Amino acid sequence: MNKPVVLGIVGAGNIGKLHMSNLINDKNVRIKTVSDLFIEHFKNNEITENIDVLTDDYMDILGDEEINAVMICSPTNTHIPLIKEAAKKGKHIFCEKPISFSDEESIEAYREVKEAGVIFQIGFNRRFDKNFSSIRERVANGKIGTPHILKITSRDPKPPHIDYIASSGGLFYDMTIHDFDMARFMMDSEVVEVYAQGANLVNEEIREKGDIDTAIITLTFDNGAIGVIDNSREAVYGYDQRVEMFGNKGTLTADNETPTNITYYHQEGVQQDNPLYFFLERYNDAYIAEVSDFIKSVLANESSSVSFYDGLMAQRIAQAAQRSFDNKKPVQVDTEIW
Amino acid sequence: MNKPVVLGIVGAGNIGKLHMSNLINDKNVRIKTVSDLFIEHFKNNEITENIDVLTDDYMDILGDEEINAVMICSPTNTHIPLIKEAAKKGKHIFCEKPISFSDEESIEAYREVKEAGVIFQIGFNRRFDKNFSSIRERVANGKIGTPHILKITSRDPKPPHIDYIASSGGLFYDMTIHDFDMARFMMDSEVVEVYAQGANLVNEEIREKGDIDTAIITLTFDNGAIGVIDNSREAVYGYDQRVEMFGNKGTLTADNETPTNITYYHQEGVQQDNPLYFFLERYNDAYIAEVSDFIKSVLANESSSVSFYDGLMAQRIAQAAQRSFDNKKPVQVDTEIW
Amino acid sequence: MNKPVVLGIVGAGNIGKLHMSNLINDKNVRIKTVSDLFIEHFKNNEITENIDVLTDDYMDILGDEEINAVMICSPTNTHIPLIKEAAKKGKHIFCEKPISFSDEESIEAYREVKEAGVIFQIGFNRRFDKNFSSIRERVANGKIGTPHILKITSRDPKPPHIDYIASSGGLFYDMTIHDFDMARFMMDSEVVEVYAQGANLVNEEIREKGDIDTAIITLTFDNGAIGVIDNSREAVYGYDQRVEMFGNKGTLTADNETPTNITYYHQEGVQQDNPLYFFLERYNDAYIAEVSDFIKSVLANESSSVSFYDGLMAQRIAQAAQRSFDNKKPVQVDTEIW
Amino acid sequence: MNKPVVLGIVGAGNIGKLHMSNLINDKNVRIKTVSDLFIEHFKNNEITENIDVLTDDYMDILGDEEINAVMICSPTNTHIPLIKEAAKKGKHIFCEKPISFSDEESIEAYREVKEAGVIFQIGFNRRFDKNFSSIRERVANGKIGTPHILKITSRDPKPPHIDYIASSGGLFYDMTIHDFDMARFMMDSEVVEVYAQGANLVNEEIREKGDIDTAIITLTFDNGAIGVIDNSREAVYGYDQRVEMFGNKGTLTADNETPTNITYYHQEGVQQDNPLYFFLERYNDAYIAEVSDFIKSVLANESSSVSFYDGLMAQRIAQAAQRSFDNKKPVQVDTEIW
Repeated sequence: MNKPVVLGIVGAGNIGKLHMSNLINDKNVRIKTVSDLFIEHFKNNEITENIDVLTDDYMDILGDEEINAVMICSPTNTHIPLIKEAAKKGKHIFCEKPISFSDEESIEAYREVKEAGVIFQIGFNRRFDKNFSSIRERVANGKIGTPHILKITSRDPKPPHIDYIASSGGLFYDMTIHDFDMARFMMDSEVVEVYAQGANLVNEEIREKGDIDTAIITLTFDNGAIGVIDNSREAVYGYDQRVEMFGNKGTLTADNETPTNITYYHQEGVQQDNPLYFFLERYNDAYIAEVSDFIKSVLANESSSVSFYDGLMAQRIAQAAQRSFDNKKPVQVDTEIW
Repeated sequence: MNKPVVLGIVGAGNIGKLHMSNLINDKNVRIKTVSDLFIEHFKNNEITENIDVLTDDYMDILGDEEINAVMICSPTNTHIPLIKEAAKKGKHIFCEKPISFSDEESIEAYREVKEAGVIFQIGFNRRFDKNFSSIRERVANGKIGTPHILKITSRDPKPPHIDYIASSGGLFYDMTIHDFDMARFMMDSEVVEVYAQGANLVNEEIREKGDIDTAIITLTFDNGAIGVIDNSREAVYGYDQRVEMFGNKGTLTADNETPTNITYYHQEGVQQDNPLYFFLERYNDAYIAEVSDFIKSVLANESSSVSFYDGLMAQRIAQAAQRSFDNKKPVQVDTEIW
Repeated sequence: MNKPVVLGIVGAGNIGKLHMSNLINDKNVRIKTVSDLFIEHFKNNEITENIDVLTDDYMDILGDEEINAVMICSPTNTHIPLIKEAAKKGKHIFCEKPISFSDEESIEAYREVKEAGVIFQIGFNRRFDKNFSSIRERVANGKIGTPHILKITSRDPKPPHIDYIASSGGLFYDMTIHDFDMARFMMDSEVVEVYAQGANLVNEEIREKGDIDTAIITLTFDNGAIGVIDNSREAVYGYDQRVEMFGNKGTLTADNETPTNITYYHQEGVQQDNPLYFFLERYNDAYIAEVSDFIKSVLANESSSVSFYDGLMAQRIAQAAQRSFDNKKPVQVDTEIW
Repeated sequence: MNKPVVLGIVGAGNIGKLHMSNLINDKNVRIKTVSDLFIEHFKNNEITENIDVLTDDYMDILGDEEINAVMICSPTNTHIPLIKEAAKKGKHIFCEKPISFSDEESIEAYREVKEAGVIFQIGFNRRFDKNFSSIRERVANGKIGTPHILKITSRDPKPPHIDYIASSGGLFYDMTIHDFDMARFMMDSEVVEVYAQGANLVNEEIREKGDIDTAIITLTFDNGAIGVIDNSREAVYGYDQRVEMFGNKGTLTADNETPTNITYYHQEGVQQDNPLYFFLERYNDAYIAEVSDFIKSVLANESSSVSFYDGLMAQRIAQAAQRSFDNKKPVQVDTEIW
């Protein structure tokens, strides 16, 4: 058996806690330290019992030589300095999406990560969803021939708290970025052009914060195929996550996941369960697979399956989408790094 | 019982023959005359037995005072002169889509139709499909609250003969025009802006004829909602015709119709029927409902449920889509007539 | 074109009227005479306008030499004398199910029909349902290999009027008889043994009339396969008519038919339409196909596709089921005629 | 945190190994000892690394005072002596189904278990399936009103090895016993009468071993409802496990579980995944929930949710089914213990 990965986690918000609970019983990992500015809110629970150090200073992680891998789960504006510092210290890095809001800063960090030779994984959990990964695999196996059209439906069950909107980077950076990564992943080809149409239909407060809540984004891929994503911040029936890949030999669709497969026939109709309500339920297995993939990469000292480049490209598509929406015209996406 | 409508049909191609066979046993109609340039190809069959006059001159219809209604099923470039002449002669008019390729010509014809006071119906058969009309009705009944996003999937089972492409007016005029009408019908609001992305993925010959075979078209509606249509000239699994209306209280989807509702579980998978193969099967009932609605309007001397304006608007959206695709930018749609 | 069949219809109840409206516009048929004891209730409507004679005496049909075919839609206890008389007069016969409640009487009538050489069709409309006939065809084509298990779900949306129960012959003769015929039709093998379990769960009044309203009937087929039918007089969600054929290479299921294929996602769940509500809607196309099959047989002077023997066997299985239920033991079914 | 349960496992066959791998990482359990007659086949793997004692003598478990709970996963004919000995030694017991092939022996063991006051759980894993337990809950919540008809489809993907058949106790004891338990669980009422129809259609060797491979079993419940189970030893499309509960206010069905929810539209049809292939995949989560429920009961010293009585009743129904099939008549089931 391998020596376990000694892990530090920066950020004990929702996503940080999720990763902790997915890793706390993994024999291949020891979560040594967790840092958070408000670490006092995160004490005395079942998970912390098994963690050595709880601190409000992330340098207690980055400066600890025993720790060989770090998970960055803090707000987006902290990612770049944390990535650079961790790389400098030779620690392997798992970073939540998006890398940053700036192309230049991301490229700079990318260079340092490459130079340091550490493993880097970006948190695109949906790549580990059994349905989406199976579609990619079936497309690769030629089931639909040459892909022509990709369609992604991605709607949240309800908007985030209005205070979050301002710091979120906007719909494209915060929410659609997952769909942009899915588009690249499914199509196995780069997005080279984007046209984004958006609207404020869900919540007037979101408009006041300068953001939109509803969007349709048209994509053009390097292989000639085209695609479309539709987003809403609020689907009252649950988390609506569907994908369709259409090609010259057929089409593959992935429908929503539901709590049970029960059908209820009664006087008012024939009824099935709503989709699983939110990302924690819907992508539960995918989150587990994601972090164990990272740990496996670290143990084997192999490059991870979701690279810095993947994070960078999703960020660039988000940027292009924002520019397209702002200027009402299609925008090209640069696929070269430097 | 009413005196039957005495009908003349101009054009004995596929769609003309379809309407004939749907009307030949209707007690409310007498098909007196059918004209076609190649009428000799259309003799001695079960239908012609019951038709008085077969001619290659459409004036045998327009000049016959006994005939009070005319169905225009000839190529698009003949529509305008036929509409004008029929209106002048006081005949009620059913005209296949599109009205024409020219906004100005259509408006001019519209004026003459209005002046003549004849009933005019444009051939948007899908409005009579039970699924689509039920979605419109449920939306009107508030089932999904305020509509936010409309999605239409519309894919043909195979491309038309390559010779037809050149005279078709292009994908947007020939095929998407039905979807443009569906968009207005479902949303019950005008399309005010269009962005069209297209590609040549199905057949190289179509490109050579200057047309595309695959498209994604983003729509903005007057009520603030947004929508998207995706088209392909070739879906090998059959005629793919689906619709989704998403609003703040829910979403409604209409799936494809199939020959049977049988499921077959075998070693290779769990299998259901392909969608009904083409528009004749898929919209069979809708075509019947469409013509009987026209006949009903004529008998009752009431304006038809699918107006000249509906035809004009679909044509304008097609035009805007073409311009958007040609110039790679979103294009406004004029909703005023004159 | 053939000379039309001249038809007389005995019985203007629900089913008689249904056949009339399905045949009234058929160019191959002329409904000359309709007889009913209460014929005065059936006057002055759109259908009667086109019928020459309305009478309370069925001999106005059987005694009319111009009439060459008769449809027997009167109560079951009148079937045998009507069949015999019609056969004697050389008229082709369509008879509603069941032929009679007595094996001996049915066999006697059968002999006279055979002797007279007239065409006889029993009213098992479900054989003409597109789903069920397609399952039979696919089984015949080897899709499931050797059949092992047949399952039929057959539930009415609500019980018939309590006054009808007494004269109905009981659940097995009145309702399950259709399923017994389906079992023979699907399996293409005779039912040789029956075990019937029944219960009174829907309506206490039905028990008082000496009948049951819920049943599970196990069937053994001559080919070694086994089967099961479940019945209820009341499924509040609609007419529940499903079939499953399981064999050594797979299984085929036919699900219910619905008014639309719309799915509605809302806060309470994901909802589809209830099954079509009753046999008139559900088997509308099957009823039309059934009578046109009879008319075709008469015109071609060929034996019909649903024979007297088919009627007799369904009746015998019903009888065996009743005896099994009464005596709480499995009962053999005789498949020899005489 | 509780002191972990110290566990001994008798029998290292498929099911024993399954439970081990589900418990080996559970912090509430320490698997101290595993016994098996052929224990040498079960050495040097990832699981055994973490087990203290591997032995071919089950007395190394029953005689070990530190061990407070035992899982009996050995062949059925060893269950009774093991249960008695374990009870005498004061150990809590988890026992695989069926308890035994003899009513008298089971009752005797039951008395000793009761006297000893140890916790006893019988291995009916399907009670922990999310779909089936949700149906029971919804029925309890009145969703279908009063239950009228229960239907269980239960088909294995392929027959067990022919050598296993002879010692299996036959189809009803080996396979249907799960369905008998499901019937009691779903209906929340005792089965009071059984009629079993069986056949040999899958494999001639099974007949030679004196067993059947296909069956339809009719059940009568104490609450007046009726039910039916259909079984096959071989469904080539996978493990077919469906349930339907029909009542006076509606019906609830649970469909099969599949690896993904992908639909594939291609030229041959519209295809979905086969059901999960066998009980290990299909009931994976249920097996985990089952053993953690047992551990929870032991830790809390509370009686388990699947009792000895549940095991006894399922066994009695199996017995009645066998007698019904042998004698071709319905058989009563005794619901009193002594």
